[in-house]
Amino acid sequence: MTAHPIKHLIEAADRAISAQDFETLMAFYADDATLVVRPGLNAHGKDQILQAFHRIAEHFKHGLDVTQGEMQVLEGGDTALVIMETLLHSPEADGSTTETRRRATYVFRKYPDGQWLCVVDNSYGTDLLTQV
Amino acid sequence: MTAHPIKHLIEAADRAISAQDFETLMAFYADDATLVVRPGLNAHGKDQILQAFHRIAEHFKHGLDVTQGEMQVLEGGDTALVIMETLLHSPEADGSTTETRRRATYVFRKYPDGQWLCVVDNSYGTDLLTQV
Repeated sequence: MTAHPIKHLIEAADRAISAQDFETLMAFYADDATLVVRPGLNAHGKDQILQAFHRIAEHFKHGLDVTQGEMQVLEGGDTALVIMETLLHSPEADGSTTETRRRATYVFRKYPDGQWLCVVDNSYGTDLLTQV
Repeated sequence: MTAHPIKHLIEAADRAISAQDFETLMAFYADDATLVVRPGLNAHGKDQILQAFHRIAEHFKHGLDVTQGEMQVLEGGDTALVIMETLLHSPEADGSTTETRRRATYVFRKYPDGQWLCVVDNSYGTDLLTQV
């Protein structure tokens, strides 16, 4: 079975995050996308999302590495709900690495030119309900 | 603060499920919506979704009652990701009621006429990853 095209997009976006190549990263988002920076704080639009990724990179001391676990894609109405395990590896002061596993929820939208773009990026998944 | 219009739609849809008024219920879905019937089994389009709700009603012996808990709406790109607690009350053979709490994920899309319709209905939320 061929992997869903969105799988490749997410892998490429996560590589861009790990490489801190935020210009490349922004190409995966719609102009009016929303990113959950942390529960209760959302970034709207590419300017805010770009700023948020710079702050996130600083927070993780420019050592964040993002990879993907299990994934499900549910398509309907030219949108796709992606449920996936996201693994964050971040450096600690003592040289060790902390791994954080999140069950993320992303919404992608298929635009008339056939391109899928991320419109809602919520890496906290349903944990959002308890953490606000 | 005024509640998000989608909150009222979900409340009305859940009332229609509880009343087994599936004709009314179908008006909340886009023609090409997807419903996760159970992990691994999806219904696509209104015909399949309608059939699925009839089977779900039978499964719960026509006694299913659905209400809503906490809710978060994340809007981006004329779509909305809804994260919400869904409470299912279903009758048991001994006359008691079983309550099941799920953390659901729904995607709504705002169509050019301003109407929000459900395009992905996944009441299993991120539990979908472990249950398939």
